Amino acid sequence: MFMLQIVLASLCLAAPSPDAGVLTSARVLDESSPSDWRRVDPSNTLYLDLPGGRVVIELAAGFAPAHVENIRTLAREHYFDDLAILRSQDNYVAQWGDPNADDRTNAGDRAHAKSLGSARTKLPAEFSRPSQGLAFTKLSDGDVYTREVGWADGFPVGRDPGTGQIWLAHCYGIVGAGRNNPADSSNGAELYVVTGHSPRHLDRNITAVGRVLQGMELLSSLPRGTGALGFYEKPQQRVPLKRVMLASAISAADRTEWEALRTDTPTFQQWVEARRNRREPWFVYPVGHVELCNVPLPARELKKPAH
Amino acid sequence: MFMLQIVLASLCLAAPSPDAGVLTSARVLDESSPSDWRRVDPSNTLYLDLPGGRVVIELAAGFAPAHVENIRTLAREHYFDDLAILRSQDNYVAQWGDPNADDRTNAGDRAHAKSLGSARTKLPAEFSRPSQGLAFTKLSDGDVYTREVGWADGFPVGRDPGTGQIWLAHCYGIVGAGRNNPADSSNGAELYVVTGHSPRHLDRNITAVGRVLQGMELLSSLPRGTGALGFYEKPQQRVPLKRVMLASAISAADRTEWEALRTDTPTFQQWVEARRNRREPWFVYPVGHVELCNVPLPARELKKPAH
Repeated sequence: MFMLQIVLASLCLAAPSPDAGVLTSARVLDESSPSDWRRVDPSNTLYLDLPGGRVVIELAAGFAPAHVENIRTLAREHYFDDLAILRSQDNYVAQWGDPNADDRTNAGDRAHAKSLGSARTKLPAEFSRPSQGLAFTKLSDGDVYTREVGWADGFPVGRDPGTGQIWLAHCYGIVGAGRNNPADSSNGAELYVVTGHSPRHLDRNITAVGRVLQGMELLSSLPRGTGALGFYEKPQQRVPLKRVMLASAISAADRTEWEALRTDTPTFQQWVEARRNRREPWFVYPVGHVELCNVPLPARELKKPAH
Repeated sequence: MFMLQIVLASLCLAAPSPDAGVLTSARVLDESSPSDWRRVDPSNTLYLDLPGGRVVIELAAGFAPAHVENIRTLAREHYFDDLAILRSQDNYVAQWGDPNADDRTNAGDRAHAKSLGSARTKLPAEFSRPSQGLAFTKLSDGDVYTREVGWADGFPVGRDPGTGQIWLAHCYGIVGAGRNNPADSSNGAELYVVTGHSPRHLDRNITAVGRVLQGMELLSSLPRGTGALGFYEKPQQRVPLKRVMLASAISAADRTEWEALRTDTPTFQQWVEARRNRREPWFVYPVGHVELCNVPLPARELKKPAH
């Protein structure tokens, strides 16, 4: 199987054409097999229900275990329900949490901050972790920011063979835990999502906790706030969070289940190659290179078996 | 002046701190002198008036002269007025034009396409141009997509010393001319703007014509279309263009004038350095690298003299 796919890719490189044999992204997905996909663990699947619909986030428990555990506790205890999206800064991030938890908006009232319940109020910074023991798929195209980039556990990552550390790369759709100036000032109660050109300067400066699998457009199309850092200046401009919950907290019959394209397979290499050398007839120049954050990571809802 | 600034930057590199002497982006702008800015030519300044406000675009006459001249003609003859934004695809582009000019939406009716007036119906592809004669400020951090990147004429560019060609780089906020499969099928009557992670694979595959100076949030926050390629499926979902005009077509008293930070000065080098090594107290790790599309290009409205 592996050999066959590599041969196919080589033929395509030698003779690009819009024919059926050509390795386009669409064709790679069409021809993927069930084993090219992994089921997203319901205990790592966070639903964010907004007035406009549902955002589905995969939590990166392998990269930020303390934050993910705290987010699970907060969701289980309904901490986020009825809080709001507080900030939308163009070409950067949207952010949600408790408007009273922080005084950056000048509207907060810490005395009225919502209790974190049994969640921890203080967590360690989880900016990176040892790479040992984590399968790493390297992107051969290089990177401006760091020595090695690629994918691990289905997430885009940077890796430094010198320090032996690995970390989530701030690509479009990555979710992280907002913090103040101290490195360990995040607790997972305030989260942001990248909605613009990937701010890779945040890598290793903040704890990333996951990525959006579906519903990104509900976050990226929010009106931008006109206050400093894109905070909404009036409380009525904030977008309410109707409900935030873990898929594992819902009965299997009611939840939606997700699967994501595995990043450690020959099919995924084909997927990257199809993005590196564009074979769709529209392209005049096939490009020949691809940047980490320009490789989308496909996810799809699992169909429920019919009754 | 040049020497002094370099010395200042070196001191900052040696001793990062949140003190007043530190080279942050904010400080570079605060200390810039009038000669660090260039006035944007009103004949290259395109206003796009949407229901939510004005978008200001600087046309790149030096890179796409035939397209820019056609866009000037179309604007002068009110071609775009009362047309609409037809498409908003998440993490990619928003696009405007005549819904009847093309049949990709299945809603178009070419028999009712709006006349291009005295504009040309056919233009050459302007994917790149010779770099000779164009001042180029190189970014030393490298690039995944091409051999050299940097800035020319105030725009982000790629350059290939081998071919002697230079081209606009598809960073967030870049505006281009939509085309069908033939390379020379764009005429400037259908334009798009990049609203997501910079799709650098479009470089040298399509004619870029300018960049948004102001009002980007009006385009990036549009609801995403649910049709293929993000086209709006129902005509009433389209966002109307109230009026599109060149600043030079308006009396000087009525127009707003813009200036942009020059990209060929020691101050601009400081600006890039402030983005490469982040000295704001929030940053734990100063990064040490910066990608072309993560360097914002400041622009500001010129205050009119008081009466």
